[in-house]
Amino acid sequence: MKAQEKYREMSIAEFFAKNKELAGFSNPTRAIYQTVRELVENSLDATDSHNVLPEVKISIKEVEAATDDKPAKYEVAVEDNGIGVPPNEIANAFGKVLYSSKYVIRQTRGMYGLGVKAAILYSQMTTGQPVFIVSSTDSSDNIYYKKLLIDIKKNEPVIIEEGQLLKRSNWHGTKVYLTLEGDWIRAKQKIIEYIKRTALIAPYAEIVFETPENEIYYFPRVTKKMPKPPSEAKPHPHGIDIEQLKAMVSFTKTKTMLEFMVEEFQSIGEITARKFLESIGIDPNMNPKMLIEKGNSKLLQVVATGLRTYKNFRPPRSDYLSPIGEELIEVGLKRLFNAEWVKAITRQARAYEGHPFIVEAGIAYGGNIIPTEEPVLLRYANKIPLLYEEREDVSYKVVSSINWKLYNIEEPMPLVVLVHVASTKVPYKGVGKESLSEVQELESEIKNAVQEIARSLRLYISKKNSERTLREKIVTISKYIPEIARSLSILSIPPDKWGTDGKNNNEKIIEKLVKIVSKSIELPKIDGKEEDPEKIVRSVIANVKLEQ
Amino acid sequence: MKAQEKYREMSIAEFFAKNKELAGFSNPTRAIYQTVRELVENSLDATDSHNVLPEVKISIKEVEAATDDKPAKYEVAVEDNGIGVPPNEIANAFGKVLYSSKYVIRQTRGMYGLGVKAAILYSQMTTGQPVFIVSSTDSSDNIYYKKLLIDIKKNEPVIIEEGQLLKRSNWHGTKVYLTLEGDWIRAKQKIIEYIKRTALIAPYAEIVFETPENEIYYFPRVTKKMPKPPSEAKPHPHGIDIEQLKAMVSFTKTKTMLEFMVEEFQSIGEITARKFLESIGIDPNMNPKMLIEKGNSKLLQVVATGLRTYKNFRPPRSDYLSPIGEELIEVGLKRLFNAEWVKAITRQARAYEGHPFIVEAGIAYGGNIIPTEEPVLLRYANKIPLLYEEREDVSYKVVSSINWKLYNIEEPMPLVVLVHVASTKVPYKGVGKESLSEVQELESEIKNAVQEIARSLRLYISKKNSERTLREKIVTISKYIPEIARSLSILSIPPDKWGTDGKNNNEKIIEKLVKIVSKSIELPKIDGKEEDPEKIVRSVIANVKLEQ
Repeated sequence: MKAQEKYREMSIAEFFAKNKELAGFSNPTRAIYQTVRELVENSLDATDSHNVLPEVKISIKEVEAATDDKPAKYEVAVEDNGIGVPPNEIANAFGKVLYSSKYVIRQTRGMYGLGVKAAILYSQMTTGQPVFIVSSTDSSDNIYYKKLLIDIKKNEPVIIEEGQLLKRSNWHGTKVYLTLEGDWIRAKQKIIEYIKRTALIAPYAEIVFETPENEIYYFPRVTKKMPKPPSEAKPHPHGIDIEQLKAMVSFTKTKTMLEFMVEEFQSIGEITARKFLESIGIDPNMNPKMLIEKGNSKLLQVVATGLRTYKNFRPPRSDYLSPIGEELIEVGLKRLFNAEWVKAITRQARAYEGHPFIVEAGIAYGGNIIPTEEPVLLRYANKIPLLYEEREDVSYKVVSSINWKLYNIEEPMPLVVLVHVASTKVPYKGVGKESLSEVQELESEIKNAVQEIARSLRLYISKKNSERTLREKIVTISKYIPEIARSLSILSIPPDKWGTDGKNNNEKIIEKLVKIVSKSIELPKIDGKEEDPEKIVRSVIANVKLEQ
Repeated sequence: MKAQEKYREMSIAEFFAKNKELAGFSNPTRAIYQTVRELVENSLDATDSHNVLPEVKISIKEVEAATDDKPAKYEVAVEDNGIGVPPNEIANAFGKVLYSSKYVIRQTRGMYGLGVKAAILYSQMTTGQPVFIVSSTDSSDNIYYKKLLIDIKKNEPVIIEEGQLLKRSNWHGTKVYLTLEGDWIRAKQKIIEYIKRTALIAPYAEIVFETPENEIYYFPRVTKKMPKPPSEAKPHPHGIDIEQLKAMVSFTKTKTMLEFMVEEFQSIGEITARKFLESIGIDPNMNPKMLIEKGNSKLLQVVATGLRTYKNFRPPRSDYLSPIGEELIEVGLKRLFNAEWVKAITRQARAYEGHPFIVEAGIAYGGNIIPTEEPVLLRYANKIPLLYEEREDVSYKVVSSINWKLYNIEEPMPLVVLVHVASTKVPYKGVGKESLSEVQELESEIKNAVQEIARSLRLYISKKNSERTLREKIVTISKYIPEIARSLSILSIPPDKWGTDGKNNNEKIIEKLVKIVSKSIELPKIDGKEEDPEKIVRSVIANVKLEQ
């Protein structure tokens, strides 16, 4: 007789505690990086997504030094001026895995309602310390605070301490303190890079970061222009599966299939709804609840398949999305690299599986960019910088497959390529949100975006090259002007006057030659700026004279 | 005033339904591949892990053809002769995400108790069909069957139909039928490759696979030798975090810290336990429950840190692990590639974060292997072949960084490298179980394993090369034997006898020269086989004569 297995249930909190690497907490370095990320992303979601100009303060303090045996302990604190968490939601929002405000169709940085809770679990597992949350909403007269742990077996918050204070200012926002084991020394560069790239893409945010060494990294607000915040959308029929349809039908208050189609889905008018229902042979007056009655599973399947495949629905609405915009990308790239040339593009919205997405790309060339064999790739998704797993990302696949020589760019190249994907559903490869899947529609959009800018860059570089050639020509010609002038001057005046008028005459001839050469040359305009050829000619002559 | 967010809870079933790509179900091709994988892995876990020689039958049938709009629907069925699921556990084991027999410290193919449920969710979402399970344990007199759906909002099974039959044979095992949308045409090669590689590493299994086109792939059992099954282990103190310690303390029946240490952990004797407790200043007679009393969190932290960092615990036990073994790997490689040279190695056990692991590697060279620029890499973890995300895997990192020229292997190389990692906790990068993280201890073990075999291969190749050089020498010398023999024969007998005895004499001289040359040559042994130099010399002479 064979031994039998013992079965048991695991809570989602226990699952992520036991498999912490799945959420990005694979070692003390990644853990502290991921903690900062999750807190900062929550802060930005609570501000710019609600039309608040973000002020984010990040601080990391060492609370226990490392020893040979074990990593140091750090307190990570992140404060924002966002919309705050309602007091009755604080405990669950921070103490229950898979409890979130983010399970709606909207472009948010967080997607799984998981990140901060994974950080809290990690903190608990490594230091046993509770998380401390201080929050106030705009409309509240109080500031609320709670200290809590997660009961991992039950996936429930355990309040250790809580209270409230009367608000004396008009502050609103959230501040979270976490204590965890981490490796700051190894994580430092990545964390700073993460914050830098966040500031690059959100120049309307003010970000202050204080390191354990009390260094301050301050990223001031450089513009008050903010992208339009994303808004919540109804589902698009192309993204619907049988289970979602069942859930929608069971929740709907509509009484007919016609109403159901018009009310519950994105941009379906009555005419489209009628045509669609006719095409799948469903009576527009049928009660939608019929679909989930026993014995009607065939009917349910017909509707679900129809929704996913009907060709004449309007494409997913993209006005719900919040791209960064060409201007902000260009500002950011210019500021960060002091680049010689930058250009950004925001593409038209596209969709995959019923989810709208927008690809934006930017290229920076020259300036302070250190030339390397491959372009430096800056990846973003829903305004989050992605720093790990670069080679697994669809953007890397696209950018590394481009033959840059075709764009007149020689190796090593002083080139930065930025790619941003905004979507109500970013196709991440893992819960840690580090790389994007090779969704075909996405891949071709990224390719088109990058190639379009690369073509502009080629134009710029070839203009620059022809300008260089011309400049070289000018220099060559100009160098001979003094010599020619001297010869002409000797020939044009009688030998007895050589001593007195010779020099004067020489100067006059040079003047004439400068005018002639300068006028016959037309320098190409670069970025609308025109250079004065005469200046170039004169400076060459001046140098030649000095050499004599 | 800012709008507030609405919060809600999501069940783990809903989470994976909405984020199906996280479990590997990112498109119809991956979905059907992943479904086969999860079912086959469950079947193998139910057989070889319990000392049953596996018989696994896989079939895929098309139940609805594809149209322009939507993928085809397939029924995937997998049957095994394993230990079966107890009737009272069937509903939860298949209808509740995060309900499993695998949440123990043991080397299993499944790890998360998630895979088959993700497949069932996908099936439900795309076809609405229930999963059908038939199962019987060895000791049961009945065969039980259930048809069920998962209630996604509640994460609970909904039984559609169930029953039992009296068992007329001694069959035990499980058979699962699932209907899902899939892209068989695109998935076909990967699925066949997956099964082939599974058979390679489990030559003791009998696997039959019937495709939708009614092709039969039959992998017969080639050996009855099975690796020792893995067994369940107690936790090693180095892998313990504060939360686990709390859970262990609350469940333990021991009354003193000394007992607690000895009973609840892996291979800690009384002496070690006493020394350890002394080192952290804990009274061996203290009741372990003290650690979770209020106000004692500092004490709890001291013990948790001590457990993780104390140097004198024995390393994690590896006798719980079940490697494949050098013999089976070599058999498998030889069979699959008809290779000229194969060698495998099973390394000593090592540990990371308290989890024991064993690395095994194998190299096949020549034969039917098609030479390519890089070696072909076959990756396995806990006997599962890994086919996707190769470039993200730590094995790929190691193998691609090896300079094969140093091992006398020229490009293109007819080389296959197999890497198997067995562990009670495989550090997968994602829930889809496709690639392994760069855990440092693992990386260096893989490197050592592959390099060790590569050194043997270098020896083989250099022997082979020097044999080739020698052979060329023999051929060169032997070619002259007839000519030399003729000259000697002319010189050694009187001219009047040339006509009669000449030929005879010539033959005798050749005979003598053959013996002399053959004896002065020593061919190197290859794989213990020795060739007869005389044969080579004679065959060369025969050819020279024919040429005349």
